[in-house]
Amino acid sequence: MKINGKDWKTIWITDDLEIKVIDQTVLPHEFKIKTMRNIKDVYFGIKNMIVRGAPLIGVTGGYGFALGIKEDSSDKNLIKCSNYLKSARPTAVNLSWAIDRIYNKVARIEKSERFSFAIKEAKAIELEDIEMCSKIGDNGLKVIKDIFKKKYFEKKNKIKNINILTHCNAGWLATVDWGTALAPIYKAHRENLNIHVWVDETRPRNQGASLTAYELQSEGIPYSVIVDNAGGYLMQNNLVDMVIVGSDRTTSNGDVCNKIGTYLKALAAYENNIPFFAALPVSTIDWSLENGVNTIPIEERSEEEIDFLRGLNNKGKMETIRITPIGSKSYNPAFDVTPSKFITGLITEKGICKANKESLKSLYG
Amino acid sequence: MKINGKDWKTIWITDDLEIKVIDQTVLPHEFKIKTMRNIKDVYFGIKNMIVRGAPLIGVTGGYGFALGIKEDSSDKNLIKCSNYLKSARPTAVNLSWAIDRIYNKVARIEKSERFSFAIKEAKAIELEDIEMCSKIGDNGLKVIKDIFKKKYFEKKNKIKNINILTHCNAGWLATVDWGTALAPIYKAHRENLNIHVWVDETRPRNQGASLTAYELQSEGIPYSVIVDNAGGYLMQNNLVDMVIVGSDRTTSNGDVCNKIGTYLKALAAYENNIPFFAALPVSTIDWSLENGVNTIPIEERSEEEIDFLRGLNNKGKMETIRITPIGSKSYNPAFDVTPSKFITGLITEKGICKANKESLKSLYG
Repeated sequence: MKINGKDWKTIWITDDLEIKVIDQTVLPHEFKIKTMRNIKDVYFGIKNMIVRGAPLIGVTGGYGFALGIKEDSSDKNLIKCSNYLKSARPTAVNLSWAIDRIYNKVARIEKSERFSFAIKEAKAIELEDIEMCSKIGDNGLKVIKDIFKKKYFEKKNKIKNINILTHCNAGWLATVDWGTALAPIYKAHRENLNIHVWVDETRPRNQGASLTAYELQSEGIPYSVIVDNAGGYLMQNNLVDMVIVGSDRTTSNGDVCNKIGTYLKALAAYENNIPFFAALPVSTIDWSLENGVNTIPIEERSEEEIDFLRGLNNKGKMETIRITPIGSKSYNPAFDVTPSKFITGLITEKGICKANKESLKSLYG
Repeated sequence: MKINGKDWKTIWITDDLEIKVIDQTVLPHEFKIKTMRNIKDVYFGIKNMIVRGAPLIGVTGGYGFALGIKEDSSDKNLIKCSNYLKSARPTAVNLSWAIDRIYNKVARIEKSERFSFAIKEAKAIELEDIEMCSKIGDNGLKVIKDIFKKKYFEKKNKIKNINILTHCNAGWLATVDWGTALAPIYKAHRENLNIHVWVDETRPRNQGASLTAYELQSEGIPYSVIVDNAGGYLMQNNLVDMVIVGSDRTTSNGDVCNKIGTYLKALAAYENNIPFFAALPVSTIDWSLENGVNTIPIEERSEEEIDFLRGLNNKGKMETIRITPIGSKSYNPAFDVTPSKFITGLITEKGICKANKESLKSLYG
């Protein structure tokens, strides 16, 4: 996707086998490229959230594992590197998945060939991620076009614009390119459909106000940042035509576990008859779980994320401020579960389906 | 209510006829008393939000008007002072109401008696406000006791504690004492009922994270600040026993116009069978309006409230930071309307009633 008119991906490998990534800790206020030259650089890059977003963490981990093998391709070091990298974000399923995928392929071959094979496999993971997101975009584009059709041809509205509300950042910065929830929006924009995006700021970490806003601004797509409180009012007043969010985990019944606050927007969309879609790679589907409410463990994060905020001060420097009284207690659950009954449909790389088991299974033909 | 173990009100007048107020622009990080010696001080105090909250603005305006009359009690000056003060917050209905009430009484009497009469009337408004809030507290206490009873006697739960969620600040800092939505909580705490409050931070102005948290901390009531996104998750997981919010305007049908985000919490409470109450003085009831959605004009406030945040930096100084990308667009509606069907009941100084016209009328016997 574009930044200042130039095409970028979140990660790429140079001919000198250096990994380059966009530093996401300083966005949206600074645009910096970080270079990772060895497995240690990658470990800290993942741990310190220079890269974030499940798919991107997986791809970065894959490249990092290859760099570890470059230093020492012994069986012993394969295991050591695998454990080391996985410990950078222990709960990131994609990280383990990417490392295991490479491990299982290189463990069976000659030591001398392991490094070049690992790099090839990491590149394959990268390209597959781009392809997957692009397909989610193509499938989601059909949904957007349908909504356009309904609004303008059937209801004969005059102003030809669609308002899409999104929560958190499920954009290209969370993947290699395109993103998941934002991919359909990018595809629609490139087909000259007139889209305006309501961007939930998404407290406590503000990934909407920082990353989603930055992505849309860079791509030239009209948007407005809103506080997380505002979506209900907008829906009640016919200012939202559809909602698209991502999913960290999807149960076999179609419940969606996503960033905290998603559930409240789903309730408001349902109450106001507004289509509510989750866009997700099928790899997020957890077939072992039927109902998500009260069963999916919800990560409880640090109180500091609520008490403190980081941004640009009036001298142009990044600064942290405290907003709650000193000594105040906070509680910070990071995700919630939206039951499938509030979800109009799921947009995946394999197609669109209803949020139920039968329909999800049908994706697999 | 208490701050550091001492009883305070938000406003009082000294024997020397100076008005003293708690400076609400620096809370929760600093506790400062401001002195207002003349009508100009009062004008800027209201305009710059040193005092805020509809009832408190009314009382402050009343005293300010009296100080204006002290300087010059002529008919001409009465009108001049009235217009001047009302222009400090043109949309604050209570401000006009308090000034007009005093005006109508003093305009008919001798010039020489006008000042002492105005002060007496301003004091009456102050005392009536305290009395009104205290009664809302007493009536709300009955509701809390009923919920306690249900949870512990009927359902035989073991841990004797009630979790109440509130949005924004409808506490004593918005009134003279007690508050509206928080008054029942203070009354319950003083009767040794074990209450824990979930405090919505209430973006964009964070009145929850700053003022409500400060009030509860000062009064020694257990609470946790949460982001506005978290309430749905908490309700879904049986961590909320009731919701109490304030109301800026209540329609004759029982719709409640309150701080943006209230509606989303009402939807989640309804979905999860959690009692949702609004606490309000009957003066907020607008008998001229039946349905509030799409009829009550919603104030659209500055984008800056979303883009920038103010708090304490690591040097202990107040500092403003920007969180959105430079050049980013935001949209900032300040209130929303919760339709009466999502409201369990209204708590007023005249009693508790259902959120419908018949029940509201019955309050007036």
